[in-house]
Amino acid sequence: MIDQDVIAQSNEALVGALAQDYASLGERLARRGVEIDALKARARAFAVAVPSWGTGTGGTRFARFPGAGEPTSIFDKLDDCGVIQSLTQATPSVSLHIPWDKAEPADLTAKAEELGLRFDAMNSNTFSDTEGEYSYKFGSLSHTEAATRAQAIEHNLECIEIGQKIGSKALTVWIGDGSNFPGQSHMGRQFERYLGAMKEIYKGLPEDWRIFSEHKIYEPAFYSTVVQDWGTSLLTAQELGEKAMCLVDLGHHAPNVNIEMIVSRLIHAGKLGGFHFNDSKYGDDDLDAGTIEPYRLFLVWNELVDAEGTPGLDLAHMIDQSHNVTDPIESLMISAMEIQRAAVQAGLVDRVALAGYQDENDALMASATLRAAFRTDIEPILAMARLEAGGAIDPVATYRRSGYRAQVAAKRPAVRGGGGGIV
Amino acid sequence: MIDQDVIAQSNEALVGALAQDYASLGERLARRGVEIDALKARARAFAVAVPSWGTGTGGTRFARFPGAGEPTSIFDKLDDCGVIQSLTQATPSVSLHIPWDKAEPADLTAKAEELGLRFDAMNSNTFSDTEGEYSYKFGSLSHTEAATRAQAIEHNLECIEIGQKIGSKALTVWIGDGSNFPGQSHMGRQFERYLGAMKEIYKGLPEDWRIFSEHKIYEPAFYSTVVQDWGTSLLTAQELGEKAMCLVDLGHHAPNVNIEMIVSRLIHAGKLGGFHFNDSKYGDDDLDAGTIEPYRLFLVWNELVDAEGTPGLDLAHMIDQSHNVTDPIESLMISAMEIQRAAVQAGLVDRVALAGYQDENDALMASATLRAAFRTDIEPILAMARLEAGGAIDPVATYRRSGYRAQVAAKRPAVRGGGGGIV
Amino acid sequence: MIDQDVIAQSNEALVGALAQDYASLGERLARRGVEIDALKARARAFAVAVPSWGTGTGGTRFARFPGAGEPTSIFDKLDDCGVIQSLTQATPSVSLHIPWDKAEPADLTAKAEELGLRFDAMNSNTFSDTEGEYSYKFGSLSHTEAATRAQAIEHNLECIEIGQKIGSKALTVWIGDGSNFPGQSHMGRQFERYLGAMKEIYKGLPEDWRIFSEHKIYEPAFYSTVVQDWGTSLLTAQELGEKAMCLVDLGHHAPNVNIEMIVSRLIHAGKLGGFHFNDSKYGDDDLDAGTIEPYRLFLVWNELVDAEGTPGLDLAHMIDQSHNVTDPIESLMISAMEIQRAAVQAGLVDRVALAGYQDENDALMASATLRAAFRTDIEPILAMARLEAGGAIDPVATYRRSGYRAQVAAKRPAVRGGGGGIV
Amino acid sequence: MIDQDVIAQSNEALVGALAQDYASLGERLARRGVEIDALKARARAFAVAVPSWGTGTGGTRFARFPGAGEPTSIFDKLDDCGVIQSLTQATPSVSLHIPWDKAEPADLTAKAEELGLRFDAMNSNTFSDTEGEYSYKFGSLSHTEAATRAQAIEHNLECIEIGQKIGSKALTVWIGDGSNFPGQSHMGRQFERYLGAMKEIYKGLPEDWRIFSEHKIYEPAFYSTVVQDWGTSLLTAQELGEKAMCLVDLGHHAPNVNIEMIVSRLIHAGKLGGFHFNDSKYGDDDLDAGTIEPYRLFLVWNELVDAEGTPGLDLAHMIDQSHNVTDPIESLMISAMEIQRAAVQAGLVDRVALAGYQDENDALMASATLRAAFRTDIEPILAMARLEAGGAIDPVATYRRSGYRAQVAAKRPAVRGGGGGIV
Repeated sequence: MIDQDVIAQSNEALVGALAQDYASLGERLARRGVEIDALKARARAFAVAVPSWGTGTGGTRFARFPGAGEPTSIFDKLDDCGVIQSLTQATPSVSLHIPWDKAEPADLTAKAEELGLRFDAMNSNTFSDTEGEYSYKFGSLSHTEAATRAQAIEHNLECIEIGQKIGSKALTVWIGDGSNFPGQSHMGRQFERYLGAMKEIYKGLPEDWRIFSEHKIYEPAFYSTVVQDWGTSLLTAQELGEKAMCLVDLGHHAPNVNIEMIVSRLIHAGKLGGFHFNDSKYGDDDLDAGTIEPYRLFLVWNELVDAEGTPGLDLAHMIDQSHNVTDPIESLMISAMEIQRAAVQAGLVDRVALAGYQDENDALMASATLRAAFRTDIEPILAMARLEAGGAIDPVATYRRSGYRAQVAAKRPAVRGGGGGIV
Repeated sequence: MIDQDVIAQSNEALVGALAQDYASLGERLARRGVEIDALKARARAFAVAVPSWGTGTGGTRFARFPGAGEPTSIFDKLDDCGVIQSLTQATPSVSLHIPWDKAEPADLTAKAEELGLRFDAMNSNTFSDTEGEYSYKFGSLSHTEAATRAQAIEHNLECIEIGQKIGSKALTVWIGDGSNFPGQSHMGRQFERYLGAMKEIYKGLPEDWRIFSEHKIYEPAFYSTVVQDWGTSLLTAQELGEKAMCLVDLGHHAPNVNIEMIVSRLIHAGKLGGFHFNDSKYGDDDLDAGTIEPYRLFLVWNELVDAEGTPGLDLAHMIDQSHNVTDPIESLMISAMEIQRAAVQAGLVDRVALAGYQDENDALMASATLRAAFRTDIEPILAMARLEAGGAIDPVATYRRSGYRAQVAAKRPAVRGGGGGIV
Repeated sequence: MIDQDVIAQSNEALVGALAQDYASLGERLARRGVEIDALKARARAFAVAVPSWGTGTGGTRFARFPGAGEPTSIFDKLDDCGVIQSLTQATPSVSLHIPWDKAEPADLTAKAEELGLRFDAMNSNTFSDTEGEYSYKFGSLSHTEAATRAQAIEHNLECIEIGQKIGSKALTVWIGDGSNFPGQSHMGRQFERYLGAMKEIYKGLPEDWRIFSEHKIYEPAFYSTVVQDWGTSLLTAQELGEKAMCLVDLGHHAPNVNIEMIVSRLIHAGKLGGFHFNDSKYGDDDLDAGTIEPYRLFLVWNELVDAEGTPGLDLAHMIDQSHNVTDPIESLMISAMEIQRAAVQAGLVDRVALAGYQDENDALMASATLRAAFRTDIEPILAMARLEAGGAIDPVATYRRSGYRAQVAAKRPAVRGGGGGIV
Repeated sequence: MIDQDVIAQSNEALVGALAQDYASLGERLARRGVEIDALKARARAFAVAVPSWGTGTGGTRFARFPGAGEPTSIFDKLDDCGVIQSLTQATPSVSLHIPWDKAEPADLTAKAEELGLRFDAMNSNTFSDTEGEYSYKFGSLSHTEAATRAQAIEHNLECIEIGQKIGSKALTVWIGDGSNFPGQSHMGRQFERYLGAMKEIYKGLPEDWRIFSEHKIYEPAFYSTVVQDWGTSLLTAQELGEKAMCLVDLGHHAPNVNIEMIVSRLIHAGKLGGFHFNDSKYGDDDLDAGTIEPYRLFLVWNELVDAEGTPGLDLAHMIDQSHNVTDPIESLMISAMEIQRAAVQAGLVDRVALAGYQDENDALMASATLRAAFRTDIEPILAMARLEAGGAIDPVATYRRSGYRAQVAAKRPAVRGGGGGIV
């Protein structure tokens, strides 16, 4: 954990300027009819879950280059998540991945409580062979063999079981099932097998749980993927029932696709369940949220803020990234804050004016209204929200000053990189 | 019309070699357990509708370069469609576009009967201002103004009315509605307005008619499009009712999207209504079917042949292309034959073997099974089917020999090209 | 022209808040070691050329929906450009398109002088048929026929001739030449014909002129384009000689392409000549600069500011857009200001810190350094620069208040929309 | 090795039908003025190198699912390559990857000789950490640290050294260097460091060697890649000198890019060195050549056959694939034969007719001329060429019958799959 003194000292050096900036921003916003404290409240209410697996250094099929002090167990990972939360005050929950994070449920909840964390959606893994008898080389929930499907179903039910013991309320199902060549799989029958398996899992879902269907256009399958887009995800959620919702990962779309529009359509259909946030330029690059195309992230949040109050809309926000060249803790802090920034900026949109411009087809002023919100530098609001919640004004600088990474590097065993063979 | 003697003379020179090729192909197919006459029957049963507007030279926003003998009325266009059908025997119907093709219904049916043609789906136009009082600059069926929506609804109802008089049984609705800038339109309310308008049109649909919803990712709108993908098209068809189906235009997708998979999903959902065939490399290029990525066309047909016999599956096949650098009649003949080729080749797939390989996850042999069908040169089957139906063995050569283009060029007024200003 | 009183009145209402905002921003920047007046000087030094054709409403191949008061001659267009410059003080020059803007050179210079404008690069048009004997249907500078190429060369030489009389110093050559089908053109010989023609034009280039080669991946050609990417543009500039440079249009690339990297490579090669600014989501959408992906625009400017002082680097900045749903004057003002914003924000990057992070492979802080600059709301700097130069603090509001559009609509003849036939 | 008897027995069952098919195809081709034996000669002259690493099962960043009998050393891999060559007679050489394939050179050449193989281009690996002192986490030849660059240079020089001892004549350099975030690397200085390092390697190139520069748009770097496209690859080859050439991997391009056009441009520039063949639908999918978009492969070969005889054109053809769901030996055989098919079909194009259509801008017939060649089923030519060279008429069936995989599975140790952690 980060010593409260380190946070306090870091903040002390910055608090004067922050107070000044917050006041001056408050004045400017007031001139626009915006109450800065309402935005600060929005910032404080914001929360996004951290993926346990994101605390380790990721990699590509070519190689993985670990850093110092890599977490070696779920408890190490929770420690790292605790650091992120203590500094940003924006990530109160953690999303687990089974079997990677398997442990005694009581130990998990005890550790989480100690760190002030709780558990978000559970994630199952049927895209790599684990301890099971049957291989997922040719699929899992949509496999041609009933036994393999049964194993995958069983695994998902186990995830629910674990989740129930640690306070989770949702299961996210992402499968890599698909095919690499035209003809390899019968696309219709494969989808039916998938739906059949999902129905079995759905049956095992507790009353107050939800199941999230996550689509992805490609990878690891390179010709077809069973749940390739939001259309198929929607069909799935429709066939399963009202506890089934669609989850949107920002990096899982074809090039050029308008993601905020998909968000709007899923809201219309009553099937938007949540997000996996990250950013990307080419494929499922899993880069830090808001670092490649920040306006796109803002436009997604513009839809979400616009839809606030929609009956039944209850979104699960999670980060899902791979940190290959940065300290994962730093990337997760930056990402959480960039998502929070977009959420608060979207709260700043003058929606009355916007609706007026839209009604009059004043495209120029409507568009300018969104940009005016996006352009506003609300960093003082985010920093003040963190400060008031006990976090750091500048989380990255504070983290670096704390020496946390060096401390865990001294304690945790070194991890060798991988790569070679997979080309 | 093409003189029957010209066709006969053209065929005479080729029929000997064709008979030989047909026989030798028959032997080779027999060795693979395939009955060539069954494939010929498939070729003869094949039909795709020609779009009336495709008989004129198309253009881009930069310019339009007309050719000689451009049709100047729907009756000219029908003449050209008659030529295409008489030579290919694969295009017995024509799809009209209102208001471009407006004429006395009795005259239309008389002309069609004379040419041996019938009328396929009707197409409405609310993407350019026509004779209406209200402009479609900012949308049509989804416009913010009720009066504009009413005008667009009225226009669609008129298309149905005309269609009923000429024997059509379907209305295809494609709208360009969308927005060019983030914020210009409220995406949720815009979609609701669209659905509301479509419901009005749906009410006017005769009992034995269908309405096709056609999606397109972009153009003419460049930031968002109301019916941007098959997911939104599906939502639309679901909300309208059982006479509403989805129409897939091969060029209306994001880059890299697996179109045959969308076909499979729409079949699963019971909502596949038909196709607009063409080919493309970049955007909605509207190039001749089968000229850019012929294997993709085959894979689409592979899904269709596989699904033959699915209850309720009754597909409307249409060409939708823009012919900028070729004689439109030639491009339409080539396209019809390439679509027919894919349909017949898909009929050649050894589906028993394929299913076996799929069940065993023998990706290599499953994929090879499709390629074996695609690789088979079934040109003699197509040519024989044409010959037996009274068409030309080599439609393009016969058309050129006929001198049809020069004849109509002599009769039809010259058309000036356009361009300039639209950059 | 906009009445100076209207500008003065508009500014008066805003100047108090502006002074306050400028001062408070100055303090915040000073804390970061940045001198606000240096940034204001950067804003004042900024200039981007307005395309004469951009003052008219654009369109798509489906339709064109003109607005009120469309300019009907180059003199009308210059009036509109004068409005843009008088309000934004960021667009002192106009780029002409021949033959659209053909007029007596003396009249052009007189008019420009009256409006305080000068002429930027000349643009030739060989992508639509104009007054020439030979059609450009199958190409212009790369046409198979020598006579057609000669006509296109002659047209470019005429553009230079006109340009010389009005003070231009550069010719931009963009051709739509290419092919719609595999095989249509021999790609190697076509390129050689293009190079041969360009060499003829190059010979006619005055000593102090430059020629810009502009690439584009597709449209109006849909299978191949002669100058399809920066690689071919570079080859062209290399073969022509040192007065030949490459021009980058932000919308002319394949999906996902890293444009700022192309900028960096062309700077390395000593061949970056300038830009056509705009924004896009799908294809060559020609939307207002900075409205779709503003961070991309900033990243391009980050390269340009970084390269300031590179020997021989002398860039021509132009806007190239199509305004389909907005008042073109407003869109051009917004675009000029968004480009200026990116230029000034890029001037705010802490390059010493950035270089340090880059040297240490501190990816997180390097990336954060760019975002810190991008996030800074420098609107007060732009507004103050405009105010001090005699422009408007809020150009769009001032323009609307001025009633200019209504005035010219009363004077200029109404223009009919187009569309129909081109599908 | 495959027992010659197995090959003979397999062939015996097929040779009768083959002779018949070959004869009947010969007649049909003769009617088109094509000499079948000339095409067979083209098939026999064809050769493509097999990548040693392709004989093992590949994987994605999510998992790797090995098959039975995975090769565990370069000698196992050479055995597998020997099988591929003995059955297809189209892959007489092997391309090695250092350090994966490091072994005593004399042992390598002895083994190759025994198998009737030779060694093609050498491949260096600086995209994963190997035995070196310095990590490639932040780059190799373009790294900010001189020591890391020196290590990478040294490794490349060692590859040349090994290559010289085993008869190789070329070094292929592909680096994953780039950045994951805007700002992480200074793109200009990074490229200069890369060029500096390449010049050091170039100095060590023997007189009769060539060095291939291979571009790739992204992966493993996800924001920018140093050699991102053919433009940068060309700049590199130009700066290095005449022994430096560009290598085109079919899967390394942005979506929609016209690859055959890049081939044409590199031929024009005198800088085309060779290919890495494979197929892809989304990213660098590394799927079996000709299985996703076979017409694209044909169009590439159309350029190559067209350019035959160009002075200095001497191409290195290699396969570069990842086999995740098939037996790698089967995929490599299929790929070699599909590439060979495209090469022979391209030899069938009526180039005189094509040139005529191109000169007359007869786009329709020019395009049809290419399709006529592509459509011709030349399988009997390929099979006859294999048969006459001592290979198998049906390599996959023969391989399966041989029981080779089961034999090596019995001998080679089982390999565990990977995955987990890298998400």
